[in-house]
Amino acid sequence: MGLAGLKIVLVEPAGPLNLGAIARAMKNFGLNQLVIVNPQCDRNSPDAMKMAVHAKEILESAIVVQTLPQALQGCVRVIATSGRVSSWETPLENPRTALPWLLEEPEQPVALIFGREDRGLSNEELNYAQRFVQIPTHESYQSLNLATAVAICCYELAQCTAPPATQSPSTPELAPWDLLEAYYQQLESLLLKIGYLYPHTATSRMEKFRQLYNRTHLQTTEVAMLRGILRQIEWAITNYRE
Amino acid sequence: MGLAGLKIVLVEPAGPLNLGAIARAMKNFGLNQLVIVNPQCDRNSPDAMKMAVHAKEILESAIVVQTLPQALQGCVRVIATSGRVSSWETPLENPRTALPWLLEEPEQPVALIFGREDRGLSNEELNYAQRFVQIPTHESYQSLNLATAVAICCYELAQCTAPPATQSPSTPELAPWDLLEAYYQQLESLLLKIGYLYPHTATSRMEKFRQLYNRTHLQTTEVAMLRGILRQIEWAITNYRE
Repeated sequence: MGLAGLKIVLVEPAGPLNLGAIARAMKNFGLNQLVIVNPQCDRNSPDAMKMAVHAKEILESAIVVQTLPQALQGCVRVIATSGRVSSWETPLENPRTALPWLLEEPEQPVALIFGREDRGLSNEELNYAQRFVQIPTHESYQSLNLATAVAICCYELAQCTAPPATQSPSTPELAPWDLLEAYYQQLESLLLKIGYLYPHTATSRMEKFRQLYNRTHLQTTEVAMLRGILRQIEWAITNYRE
Repeated sequence: MGLAGLKIVLVEPAGPLNLGAIARAMKNFGLNQLVIVNPQCDRNSPDAMKMAVHAKEILESAIVVQTLPQALQGCVRVIATSGRVSSWETPLENPRTALPWLLEEPEQPVALIFGREDRGLSNEELNYAQRFVQIPTHESYQSLNLATAVAICCYELAQCTAPPATQSPSTPELAPWDLLEAYYQQLESLLLKIGYLYPHTATSRMEKFRQLYNRTHLQTTEVAMLRGILRQIEWAITNYRE
Protein backbone atom coordinates (compact mmCIF):
# COMPACT_ATOMS: atom_id res chain seq x y z
CA MET A 1 0.00 0.00 0.00
CA GLY A 2 1.51 3.26 -1.17
CA LEU A 3 0.16 5.36 1.67
CA ALA A 4 2.50 3.78 4.23
CA GLY A 5 5.57 5.43 2.75
CA LEU A 6 4.02 8.84 2.37
CA LYS A 7 5.18 11.66 4.64
CA ILE A 8 2.97 14.66 5.35
CA VAL A 9 5.42 17.53 5.84
CA LEU A 10 4.22 20.70 7.59
CA VAL A 11 6.46 23.77 7.38
CA GLU A 12 6.35 25.98 10.49
CA PRO A 13 2.75 25.30 11.55
CA ALA A 14 1.57 27.74 14.25
CA GLY A 15 -1.85 26.42 15.26
CA PRO A 16 -2.12 23.55 17.75
CA LEU A 17 -5.79 22.99 16.80
CA ASN A 18 -4.62 22.49 13.23
CA LEU A 19 -1.92 20.03 14.29
CA GLY A 20 -4.45 17.91 16.15
CA ALA A 21 -7.00 18.02 13.32
CA ILE A 22 -4.29 17.05 10.83
CA ALA A 23 -3.25 14.04 12.91
CA ARG A 24 -6.86 12.89 13.09
CA ALA A 25 -7.47 13.30 9.35
CA MET A 26 -4.23 11.46 8.55
CA LYS A 27 -5.25 8.49 10.64
CA ASN A 28 -8.79 8.61 9.20
CA PHE A 29 -7.32 8.08 5.75
CA GLY A 30 -4.59 5.61 6.60
CA LEU A 31 -1.54 7.87 6.73
CA ASN A 32 0.76 7.93 9.73
CA GLN A 33 4.07 9.68 8.99
CA LEU A 34 4.00 13.29 10.08
CA VAL A 35 7.10 15.49 9.77
CA ILE A 36 7.07 19.00 11.25
CA VAL A 37 9.63 21.56 10.12
CA ASN A 38 10.54 24.16 12.77
CA PRO A 39 7.18 24.08 14.57
CA GLN A 40 5.82 27.38 15.90
CA CYS A 41 3.55 25.71 18.43
CA ASP A 42 3.55 22.75 20.80
CA ARG A 43 2.31 19.55 19.21
CA ASN A 44 1.63 18.15 22.69
CA SER A 45 -0.49 21.09 23.82
CA PRO A 46 -4.01 20.40 25.15
CA ASP A 47 -5.57 22.00 22.04
CA ALA A 48 -3.62 19.71 19.74
CA MET A 49 -4.45 16.62 21.78
CA LYS A 50 -8.12 17.59 22.00
CA MET A 51 -8.45 17.82 18.23
CA ALA A 52 -6.44 14.64 17.61
CA VAL A 53 -8.89 12.57 19.71
CA HIS A 54 -7.87 8.99 18.82
CA ALA A 55 -4.88 9.98 16.68
CA LYS A 56 -2.62 11.27 19.45
CA GLU A 57 0.03 8.71 18.57
CA ILE A 58 0.54 10.43 15.23
CA LEU A 59 1.40 13.67 17.03
CA GLU A 60 3.60 11.83 19.53
CA SER A 61 5.50 9.94 16.85
CA ALA A 62 5.85 12.96 14.55
CA ILE A 63 9.41 13.72 13.50
CA VAL A 64 10.55 17.29 14.15
CA VAL A 65 13.32 18.77 12.01
CA GLN A 66 14.73 22.25 11.60
CA THR A 67 14.78 22.60 7.81
CA LEU A 68 12.71 21.43 4.87
CA PRO A 69 15.65 19.62 3.19
CA GLN A 70 16.04 17.52 6.36
CA ALA A 71 12.37 16.54 6.09
CA LEU A 72 12.76 15.45 2.49
CA GLN A 73 15.84 13.23 2.96
CA GLY A 74 15.49 10.08 0.89
CA CYS A 75 12.18 11.00 -0.72
CA VAL A 76 11.96 9.98 -4.37
CA ARG A 77 8.89 12.05 -5.22
CA VAL A 78 7.84 15.34 -3.67
CA ILE A 79 4.73 17.43 -4.25
CA ALA A 80 4.21 20.86 -2.70
CA THR A 81 0.85 22.51 -2.11
CA SER A 82 0.18 26.15 -2.81
CA GLY A 83 -2.76 28.48 -2.44
CA ARG A 84 -1.14 31.20 -4.49
CA VAL A 85 -1.77 32.10 -8.08
CA SER A 86 0.92 34.68 -8.74
CA SER A 87 4.72 34.82 -8.91
CA TRP A 88 5.09 31.10 -9.57
CA GLU A 89 5.46 30.00 -13.13
CA THR A 90 5.20 26.23 -12.87
CA PRO A 91 1.63 25.04 -13.38
CA LEU A 92 -0.42 24.31 -10.27
CA GLU A 93 -2.21 21.01 -10.74
CA ASN A 94 -5.47 19.63 -9.44
CA PRO A 95 -4.89 17.27 -6.49
CA ARG A 96 -7.04 14.62 -8.13
CA THR A 97 -4.78 14.40 -11.14
CA ALA A 98 -1.42 14.98 -9.47
CA LEU A 99 -1.51 13.20 -6.10
CA PRO A 100 -1.80 9.61 -7.45
CA TRP A 101 1.72 10.09 -8.84
CA LEU A 102 3.04 9.98 -5.26
CA LEU A 103 1.72 6.46 -4.85
CA GLU A 104 3.40 4.98 -7.89
CA GLU A 105 6.56 4.24 -5.88
CA PRO A 106 5.17 2.00 -3.18
CA GLU A 107 8.56 0.90 -1.83
CA GLN A 108 10.10 4.35 -1.51
CA PRO A 109 9.47 7.34 0.74
CA VAL A 110 7.59 10.22 -0.87
CA ALA A 111 6.41 13.56 0.57
CA LEU A 112 3.58 16.02 0.36
CA ILE A 113 4.45 19.48 1.72
CA PHE A 114 2.13 22.07 3.26
CA GLY A 115 3.18 25.62 4.14
CA ARG A 116 2.42 28.03 6.96
CA GLU A 117 -1.16 28.96 7.85
CA ASP A 118 -0.65 32.62 6.94
CA ARG A 119 1.73 32.64 4.01
CA GLY A 120 2.24 29.14 2.71
CA LEU A 121 5.60 28.12 1.25
CA SER A 122 8.30 30.45 0.00
CA ASN A 123 9.47 30.15 -3.58
CA GLU A 124 12.69 28.62 -2.31
CA GLU A 125 10.71 25.95 -0.45
CA LEU A 126 8.46 25.29 -3.45
CA ASN A 127 11.58 24.66 -5.47
CA TYR A 128 12.35 21.53 -3.49
CA ALA A 129 9.28 19.86 -5.00
CA GLN A 130 8.82 18.31 -8.42
CA ARG A 131 5.14 18.99 -8.81
CA PHE A 132 2.70 21.52 -7.32
CA VAL A 133 -0.92 21.17 -6.44
CA GLN A 134 -3.58 23.70 -5.60
CA ILE A 135 -7.00 22.73 -4.28
CA PRO A 136 -9.48 24.62 -6.48
CA THR A 137 -11.48 27.12 -4.43
CA HIS A 138 -14.14 29.75 -5.02
CA GLU A 139 -12.89 33.19 -5.94
CA SER A 140 -14.81 34.79 -3.07
CA TYR A 141 -12.59 33.11 -0.46
CA GLN A 142 -9.56 31.20 -1.67
CA SER A 143 -7.62 30.65 1.52
CA LEU A 144 -8.25 27.21 2.97
CA ASN A 145 -7.64 26.34 6.58
CA LEU A 146 -4.41 24.31 6.78
CA ALA A 147 -6.07 21.29 8.40
CA THR A 148 -8.84 21.35 5.80
CA ALA A 149 -6.29 21.37 2.99
CA VAL A 150 -4.39 18.45 4.51
CA ALA A 151 -7.62 16.50 5.07
CA ILE A 152 -8.74 16.97 1.47
CA CYS A 153 -5.37 15.80 0.15
CA CYS A 154 -5.35 12.78 2.49
CA TYR A 155 -8.89 11.98 1.31
CA GLU A 156 -7.81 12.21 -2.32
CA LEU A 157 -4.79 9.99 -1.67
CA ALA A 158 -6.95 7.38 0.06
CA GLN A 159 -9.40 7.49 -2.84
CA CYS A 160 -6.73 6.38 -5.25
CA THR A 161 -5.71 3.37 -3.23
CA ALA A 162 -9.23 1.95 -3.04
CA PRO A 163 -11.56 2.01 -6.02
CA PRO A 164 -14.84 3.61 -4.98
CA ALA A 165 -17.29 1.02 -3.76
CA THR A 166 -20.77 2.21 -4.58
CA GLN A 167 -22.58 -0.82 -3.24
CA SER A 168 -22.69 -2.32 0.20
CA PRO A 169 -20.94 -5.70 0.33
CA SER A 170 -24.11 -7.69 0.90
CA THR A 171 -26.91 -6.89 -1.49
CA PRO A 172 -30.36 -8.00 -0.36
CA GLU A 173 -32.18 -10.66 -2.31
CA LEU A 174 -34.13 -9.17 -5.21
CA ALA A 175 -37.67 -10.36 -5.79
CA PRO A 176 -38.03 -12.85 -8.66
CA TRP A 177 -40.10 -11.82 -11.64
CA ASP A 178 -43.09 -14.06 -10.89
CA LEU A 179 -43.45 -12.75 -7.34
CA LEU A 180 -43.52 -9.20 -8.70
CA GLU A 181 -46.04 -10.24 -11.31
CA ALA A 182 -48.30 -11.76 -8.67
CA TYR A 183 -48.10 -8.48 -6.75
CA TYR A 184 -49.09 -6.44 -9.80
CA GLN A 185 -52.05 -8.76 -10.47
CA GLN A 186 -53.20 -8.53 -6.88
CA LEU A 187 -52.87 -4.73 -6.93
CA GLU A 188 -54.76 -4.44 -10.20
CA SER A 189 -57.70 -6.54 -9.05
CA LEU A 190 -57.94 -4.59 -5.78
CA LEU A 191 -57.85 -1.26 -7.62
CA LEU A 192 -60.55 -2.47 -9.98
CA LYS A 193 -62.63 -3.66 -7.04
CA ILE A 194 -62.52 -0.34 -5.21
CA GLY A 195 -63.20 1.65 -8.37
CA TYR A 196 -59.79 3.32 -8.64
CA LEU A 197 -59.20 1.59 -11.99
CA TYR A 198 -61.71 0.97 -14.75
CA PRO A 199 -61.39 -2.09 -16.99
CA HIS A 200 -60.73 -0.11 -20.19
CA THR A 201 -57.94 2.01 -18.67
CA ALA A 202 -56.47 -0.49 -16.23
CA THR A 203 -53.61 -1.63 -18.45
CA SER A 204 -52.17 1.81 -19.18
CA ARG A 205 -52.55 2.90 -15.56
CA MET A 206 -50.90 -0.26 -14.27
CA GLU A 207 -47.94 0.47 -16.51
CA LYS A 208 -47.22 3.54 -14.40
CA PHE A 209 -47.11 1.42 -11.26
CA ARG A 210 -44.97 -1.20 -12.89
CA GLN A 211 -42.48 1.44 -13.95
CA LEU A 212 -42.44 2.93 -10.48
CA TYR A 213 -41.87 -0.35 -8.67
CA ASN A 214 -39.61 -1.89 -11.30
CA ARG A 215 -37.06 0.87 -11.03
CA THR A 216 -36.97 0.37 -7.24
CA HIS A 217 -35.57 -3.16 -7.64
CA LEU A 218 -37.86 -4.54 -4.97
CA GLN A 219 -36.54 -7.09 -2.55
CA THR A 220 -38.40 -10.29 -1.78
CA THR A 221 -39.19 -9.13 1.75
CA GLU A 222 -40.52 -5.84 0.45
CA VAL A 223 -42.88 -7.52 -2.02
CA ALA A 224 -44.12 -9.70 0.84
CA MET A 225 -44.76 -6.53 2.85
CA LEU A 226 -46.62 -4.83 -0.01
CA ARG A 227 -48.76 -7.93 -0.59
CA GLY A 228 -49.51 -8.12 3.14
CA ILE A 229 -50.92 -4.62 2.96
CA LEU A 230 -53.13 -5.54 0.01
CA ARG A 231 -54.50 -8.54 1.87
CA GLN A 232 -55.23 -6.41 4.92
CA ILE A 233 -56.98 -3.79 2.78
CA GLU A 234 -59.10 -6.49 1.16
CA TRP A 235 -60.05 -7.72 4.59
CA ALA A 236 -60.82 -4.19 5.83
CA ILE A 237 -63.01 -3.36 2.86
CA THR A 238 -65.51 -6.05 3.75
CA ASN A 239 -65.09 -6.14 7.52
CA TYR A 240 -64.25 -2.65 8.68
CA ARG A 241 -66.85 -0.93 10.81
CA GLU A 242 -66.19 2.43 12.39
CA MET B 1 -24.75 27.09 -10.75
CA GLY B 2 -26.24 24.22 -8.76
CA LEU B 3 -24.30 25.05 -5.59
CA ALA B 4 -26.40 28.17 -4.94
CA GLY B 5 -29.52 26.15 -4.07
CA LEU B 6 -27.72 23.66 -1.87
CA LYS B 7 -28.35 23.77 1.86
CA ILE B 8 -25.82 22.32 4.28
CA VAL B 9 -27.95 21.06 7.17
CA LEU B 10 -26.26 20.39 10.52
CA VAL B 11 -28.27 18.46 13.11
CA GLU B 12 -27.54 19.50 16.70
CA PRO B 13 -23.90 20.50 16.26
CA ALA B 14 -22.18 21.00 19.62
CA GLY B 15 -18.74 22.37 18.72
CA PRO B 16 -18.31 26.07 17.97
CA LEU B 17 -14.87 25.43 16.43
CA ASN B 18 -16.58 23.05 14.02
CA LEU B 19 -19.27 25.59 13.13
CA GLY B 20 -16.65 28.17 12.27
CA ALA B 21 -14.53 25.74 10.27
CA ILE B 22 -17.64 24.60 8.39
CA ALA B 23 -18.60 28.16 7.47
CA ARG B 24 -15.08 28.77 6.15
CA ALA B 25 -15.01 25.57 4.10
CA MET B 26 -18.45 26.31 2.66
CA LYS B 27 -17.35 29.73 1.47
CA ASN B 28 -14.07 28.31 0.16
CA PHE B 29 -16.06 26.04 -2.13
CA GLY B 30 -18.82 28.44 -3.12
CA LEU B 31 -21.65 27.32 -0.83
CA ASN B 32 -23.48 29.77 1.38
CA GLN B 33 -26.73 28.32 2.76
CA LEU B 34 -26.23 26.91 6.24
CA VAL B 35 -29.18 25.52 8.21
CA ILE B 36 -28.67 24.49 11.84
CA VAL B 37 -31.18 22.19 13.52
CA ASN B 38 -31.48 22.69 17.29
CA PRO B 39 -27.90 23.93 17.81
CA GLN B 40 -26.14 22.79 20.97
CA CYS B 41 -23.63 25.64 20.90
CA ASP B 42 -23.49 29.33 20.04
CA ARG B 43 -22.75 30.02 16.40
CA ASN B 44 -21.67 33.55 17.34
CA SER B 45 -19.19 32.46 20.01
CA PRO B 46 -15.58 33.67 19.78
CA ASP B 47 -14.39 30.14 18.88
CA ALA B 48 -16.82 29.91 15.97
CA MET B 49 -15.92 33.36 14.70
CA LYS B 50 -12.19 32.68 15.07
CA MET B 51 -12.41 29.58 12.87
CA ALA B 52 -14.73 31.21 10.32
CA VAL B 53 -12.13 33.98 9.63
CA HIS B 54 -13.53 35.60 6.46
CA ALA B 55 -16.72 33.53 6.36
CA LYS B 56 -18.46 35.03 9.40
CA GLU B 57 -21.41 36.12 7.26
CA ILE B 58 -22.27 32.46 6.63
CA LEU B 59 -22.61 31.90 10.36
CA GLU B 60 -24.57 35.13 10.80
CA SER B 61 -26.99 34.36 7.98
CA ALA B 62 -27.42 30.71 8.98
CA ILE B 63 -31.03 29.66 9.45
CA VAL B 64 -31.79 28.03 12.80
CA VAL B 65 -34.73 25.63 13.06
CA GLN B 66 -35.93 23.26 15.74
CA THR B 67 -36.53 20.08 13.73
CA LEU B 68 -35.02 18.38 10.71
CA PRO B 69 -38.33 18.40 8.76
CA GLN B 70 -38.39 22.19 9.07
CA ALA B 71 -34.91 22.32 7.57
CA LEU B 72 -35.94 20.19 4.61
CA GLN B 73 -39.11 22.06 3.60
CA GLY B 74 -39.31 22.34 -0.18
CA CYS B 75 -36.13 20.38 -0.90
CA VAL B 76 -36.48 18.13 -3.94
CA ARG B 77 -33.37 16.04 -3.29
CA VAL B 78 -31.90 15.15 0.07
CA ILE B 79 -28.73 13.22 0.87
CA ALA B 80 -27.73 12.26 4.41
CA THR B 81 -24.22 11.47 5.53
CA SER B 82 -23.41 8.58 7.81
CA GLY B 83 -20.32 7.19 9.42
CA ARG B 84 -22.01 3.98 10.50
CA VAL B 85 -21.76 0.60 8.89
CA SER B 86 -24.32 -1.44 10.80
CA SER B 87 -28.09 -1.46 11.39
CA TRP B 88 -28.83 0.47 8.22
CA GLU B 89 -29.77 -1.57 5.19
CA THR B 90 -29.79 0.97 2.40
CA PRO B 91 -26.39 1.13 0.66
CA LEU B 92 -24.01 3.88 1.73
CA GLU B 93 -22.56 5.45 -1.38
CA ASN B 94 -19.26 7.11 -2.14
CA PRO B 95 -19.58 10.92 -2.07
CA ARG B 96 -17.91 11.15 -5.46
CA THR B 97 -20.59 9.09 -7.14
CA ALA B 98 -23.63 10.27 -5.16
CA LEU B 99 -23.15 14.00 -4.50
CA PRO B 100 -23.34 15.15 -8.16
CA TRP B 101 -26.97 14.01 -8.09
CA LEU B 102 -27.77 16.95 -5.80
CA LEU B 103 -26.67 19.39 -8.47
CA GLU B 104 -28.86 18.05 -11.25
CA GLU B 105 -31.78 20.23 -10.13
CA PRO B 106 -30.18 23.66 -10.44
CA GLU B 107 -33.42 25.61 -9.98
CA GLN B 108 -34.64 23.77 -6.87
CA PRO B 109 -33.51 23.65 -3.25
CA VAL B 110 -31.63 20.51 -2.26
CA ALA B 111 -30.01 19.49 1.02
CA LEU B 112 -27.03 17.62 2.39
CA ILE B 113 -27.44 16.57 6.04
CA PHE B 114 -24.72 16.00 8.64
CA GLY B 115 -25.37 14.54 12.09
CA ARG B 116 -24.08 15.20 15.56
CA GLU B 117 -20.34 15.09 16.32
CA ASP B 118 -20.68 12.15 18.70
CA ARG B 119 -23.45 9.98 17.25
CA GLY B 120 -24.40 11.21 13.81
CA LEU B 121 -27.99 10.90 12.64
CA SER B 122 -30.67 8.62 14.07
CA ASN B 123 -32.37 6.10 11.80
CA GLU B 124 -35.47 8.28 11.91
CA GLU B 125 -33.45 11.24 10.66
CA LEU B 126 -31.70 9.17 7.99
CA ASN B 127 -35.13 8.16 6.73
CA TYR B 128 -35.85 11.71 5.62
CA ALA B 129 -33.18 11.39 2.94
CA GLN B 130 -33.28 9.65 -0.41
CA ARG B 131 -29.62 8.73 -0.68
CA PHE B 132 -26.86 8.14 1.85
CA VAL B 133 -23.17 8.82 1.57
CA GLN B 134 -20.26 7.70 3.66
CA ILE B 135 -16.78 9.11 3.21
CA PRO B 136 -14.53 6.05 2.97
CA THR B 137 -12.08 5.94 5.86
CA HIS B 138 -9.37 3.66 7.16
CA GLU B 139 -10.48 0.89 9.45
CA SER B 140 -8.06 1.97 12.16
CA TYR B 141 -9.99 5.21 12.79
CA GLN B 142 -13.27 5.68 11.01
CA SER B 143 -14.76 8.64 12.83
CA LEU B 144 -14.15 11.87 10.93
CA ASN B 145 -14.29 15.28 12.54
CA LEU B 146 -17.59 16.92 11.55
CA ALA B 147 -15.93 19.95 9.96
CA THR B 148 -13.58 17.68 8.01
CA ALA B 149 -16.50 15.66 6.67
CA VAL B 150 -18.37 18.80 5.61
CA ALA B 151 -15.25 20.23 3.96
CA ILE B 152 -14.63 17.05 1.96
CA CYS B 153 -18.23 16.98 0.75
CA CYS B 154 -18.12 20.69 -0.18
CA TYR B 155 -14.88 20.04 -2.05
CA GLU B 156 -16.46 17.13 -3.92
CA LEU B 157 -19.52 19.22 -4.79
CA ALA B 158 -17.36 22.06 -6.09
CA GLN B 159 -15.41 19.58 -8.22
CA CYS B 160 -18.53 18.60 -10.10
CA THR B 161 -19.95 22.02 -10.87
CA ALA B 162 -18.44 21.84 -14.31
CA PRO B 163 -21.62 20.15 -15.64
CA PRO B 164 -21.25 16.66 -17.07
CA ALA B 165 -21.97 16.66 -20.79
CA THR B 166 -24.20 13.63 -20.74
CA GLN B 167 -27.46 14.56 -19.09
CA SER B 168 -30.82 13.12 -19.97
CA PRO B 169 -32.67 15.77 -22.00
CA SER B 170 -35.74 16.12 -19.81
CA THR B 171 -35.84 14.80 -16.28
CA PRO B 172 -39.32 14.45 -14.79
CA GLU B 173 -40.22 16.69 -11.90
CA LEU B 174 -39.29 15.05 -8.62
CA ALA B 175 -41.68 15.21 -5.71
CA PRO B 176 -40.67 17.78 -3.08
CA TRP B 177 -39.85 16.50 0.34
CA ASP B 178 -43.04 17.72 2.04
CA LEU B 179 -45.30 16.03 -0.52
CA LEU B 180 -43.51 12.75 0.12
CA GLU B 181 -43.85 13.29 3.84
CA ALA B 182 -47.59 13.88 3.49
CA TYR B 183 -47.84 10.61 1.57
CA TYR B 184 -46.02 8.70 4.30
CA GLN B 185 -48.28 10.21 6.95
CA GLN B 186 -51.40 9.29 4.97
CA LEU B 187 -50.11 5.75 4.40
CA GLU B 188 -49.24 5.28 8.05
CA SER B 189 -52.63 6.42 9.32
CA LEU B 190 -54.43 4.16 6.84
CA LEU B 191 -52.30 1.17 7.80
CA LEU B 192 -53.00 1.84 11.47
CA LYS B 193 -56.69 2.15 10.74
CA ILE B 194 -56.92 -1.19 8.95
CA GLY B 195 -54.84 -2.96 11.54
CA TYR B 196 -51.80 -3.65 9.35
CA LEU B 197 -49.67 -1.52 11.65
CA TYR B 198 -49.79 -1.36 15.41
CA PRO B 199 -48.89 1.86 17.20
CA HIS B 200 -45.84 0.38 18.95
CA THR B 201 -44.28 -1.01 15.76
CA ALA B 202 -45.47 1.59 13.27
CA THR B 203 -42.26 3.61 13.20
CA SER B 204 -39.90 0.76 12.42
CA ARG B 205 -42.27 -0.70 9.86
CA MET B 206 -42.74 2.67 8.19
CA GLU B 207 -38.98 2.95 7.89
CA LYS B 208 -39.06 0.02 5.47
CA PHE B 209 -41.60 1.81 3.30
CA ARG B 210 -39.70 5.07 3.43
CA GLN B 211 -36.53 3.32 2.32
CA LEU B 212 -38.37 1.58 -0.48
CA TYR B 213 -40.02 4.72 -1.83
CA ASN B 214 -37.14 7.08 -1.15
CA ARG B 215 -34.77 5.09 -3.30
CA THR B 216 -37.29 5.22 -6.14
CA HIS B 217 -36.99 9.03 -6.40
CA LEU B 218 -40.73 9.46 -6.82
CA GLN B 219 -42.05 12.03 -9.24
CA THR B 220 -44.77 14.48 -8.26
CA THR B 221 -47.30 12.78 -10.54
CA GLU B 222 -46.48 9.40 -9.01
CA VAL B 223 -47.02 10.64 -5.47
CA ALA B 224 -50.35 12.09 -6.60
CA MET B 225 -51.25 8.65 -8.01
CA LEU B 226 -50.25 6.83 -4.82
CA ARG B 227 -52.21 9.28 -2.69
CA GLY B 228 -55.22 8.88 -4.99
CA ILE B 229 -55.16 5.15 -4.29
CA LEU B 230 -55.06 5.75 -0.55
CA ARG B 231 -58.05 8.09 -0.75
CA GLN B 232 -59.97 5.53 -2.79
CA ILE B 233 -59.14 2.78 -0.30
CA GLU B 234 -60.29 4.97 2.56
CA TRP B 235 -63.53 5.56 0.74
CA ALA B 236 -63.95 1.86 -0.05
CA ILE B 237 -63.34 0.78 3.52
CA THR B 238 -66.42 2.60 4.75
CA ASN B 239 -68.62 2.44 1.63
CA TYR B 240 -67.90 -0.80 -0.14
CA ARG B 241 -70.74 -3.31 -0.32
CA GLU B 242 -70.38 -6.53 -2.28
